[in-house]
Amino acid sequence: MTTFTKRSCFIILALIVSPSVLTTGASKFKAEKPCKRMMLYYHDKLFDGIEKDKANATSTTVANASKLGESNFGMLVVFNDPITNDDKFHSPPVAKAQGFYFYDRKDTYTAWFAYTLVLNSSEHKGTLNIMGADLMTEKTRDLSVVGGTGDFFMARGIATFQTDTVQGAYYFRLKMDKLYECY
Amino acid sequence: MTTFTKRSCFIILALIVSPSVLTTGASKFKAEKPCKRMMLYYHDKLFDGIEKDKANATSTTVANASKLGESNFGMLVVFNDPITNDDKFHSPPVAKAQGFYFYDRKDTYTAWFAYTLVLNSSEHKGTLNIMGADLMTEKTRDLSVVGGTGDFFMARGIATFQTDTVQGAYYFRLKMDKLYECY
Amino acid sequence: MTTFTKRSCFIILALIVSPSVLTTGASKFKAEKPCKRMMLYYHDKLFDGIEKDKANATSTTVANASKLGESNFGMLVVFNDPITNDDKFHSPPVAKAQGFYFYDRKDTYTAWFAYTLVLNSSEHKGTLNIMGADLMTEKTRDLSVVGGTGDFFMARGIATFQTDTVQGAYYFRLKMDKLYECY
Repeated sequence: MTTFTKRSCFIILALIVSPSVLTTGASKFKAEKPCKRMMLYYHDKLFDGIEKDKANATSTTVANASKLGESNFGMLVVFNDPITNDDKFHSPPVAKAQGFYFYDRKDTYTAWFAYTLVLNSSEHKGTLNIMGADLMTEKTRDLSVVGGTGDFFMARGIATFQTDTVQGAYYFRLKMDKLYECY
Repeated sequence: MTTFTKRSCFIILALIVSPSVLTTGASKFKAEKPCKRMMLYYHDKLFDGIEKDKANATSTTVANASKLGESNFGMLVVFNDPITNDDKFHSPPVAKAQGFYFYDRKDTYTAWFAYTLVLNSSEHKGTLNIMGADLMTEKTRDLSVVGGTGDFFMARGIATFQTDTVQGAYYFRLKMDKLYECY
Repeated sequence: MTTFTKRSCFIILALIVSPSVLTTGASKFKAEKPCKRMMLYYHDKLFDGIEKDKANATSTTVANASKLGESNFGMLVVFNDPITNDDKFHSPPVAKAQGFYFYDRKDTYTAWFAYTLVLNSSEHKGTLNIMGADLMTEKTRDLSVVGGTGDFFMARGIATFQTDTVQGAYYFRLKMDKLYECY
């Protein structure tokens, strides 16, 4: 575990859900409150290729960084990351985030995510589908929740990411926030 | 063809469409019926690298499976798969599914899809854009229809996958189901 | 620059925005006008691997074309492309398009895109998330705007691509069009 902690970084993923409002006509949606909020932690532990790392690893590199720039432009990672209610990597996961990200800039680190949040707890059963840019240089950045299934049937919203921790090349943490349409 | 049949697996893709209802206020959408249903078969024939396989192949591996786990974690496939009205691979396609999937788990097979269903028949002209997790261990699994164009202008809905057949490493079949917002 | 121009192709991306209308009941949405329109140029300059090309390059190959067919089937590109108000590659960008595309057909060139349009100008701040098939053999083709953030909070719509120029293997231009739901 010591070795793991050193190599890894945490992701906080906060999904925030509260009173539901739907738009009508040309109403300004921005004033509306999200219909649901959840606070979750998102942990990405990239496989470093070493045998003993396999048990903890939750994501794997699919394509290496290109030679364009110094910030991993083109590096593509597929993940199946545990989502927990606190910031402990080994807490019981309440969800999984299944999808991919890649780095997409040659002069600084920015990434792009598409994934499904798969919830299978006593509280929530269903999925949320999310995509968008993770502009890592911003303190918070908004991605789109583009659809949902099960308890999140047809949901839409915003997922606000916030980096919580980055530990070396193999660990990070983000924040996800706000569903604006619940059915 | 005998060789092909042995190597391949079928995908059923059912897009189901019926009376249209749109949500207002905080109504429960779950009770509503889908606005459209179609029953389609989805055939994925992965290129195995052999010259004589090229004519039948409809998808190709873009990145090989990583060494993390035994279930193809990280294997990425781009496809242009024929969609038919019955389960025969060589029936005239009524649509194409263009997109990609990858495997995303180290201890069992699960996948993640994003693709466009391109319809160009006498009945339907347009596209449906779909993404989500294909939790292959479940009997049925729901993905999100996140948008549409042409006859499916601005559509949203659910695509329910159901595995119909898996034949070796090179063939499978799924089911897709229900559009909940039609315009 | 001469060398660059020869190797590259331009993308026009037009995002068109005007009076807002939202659907109610089973109304036909097709008759409605888009709520917003923008006209933008989208430039993709693929890195060709040569050192002196690095300054101009805006995208990079992540996976090479497979051996299935002669039209780059499976070739995957990650991009961070400048968006400008005119068709000049070196005009000040009003946005960036961050995402990826891949080629997905064995007998002719078609592609599939998913990306975020990141706007950060005096006029617009926010993002639009877009995905869909780029059926390059059609004069125009529609992709889905599946979500937005910031000034484009919760937006949906259609992005109409139109090829403006293709220059060799390393440059192209498209058109993007129409948001149908603005909040």
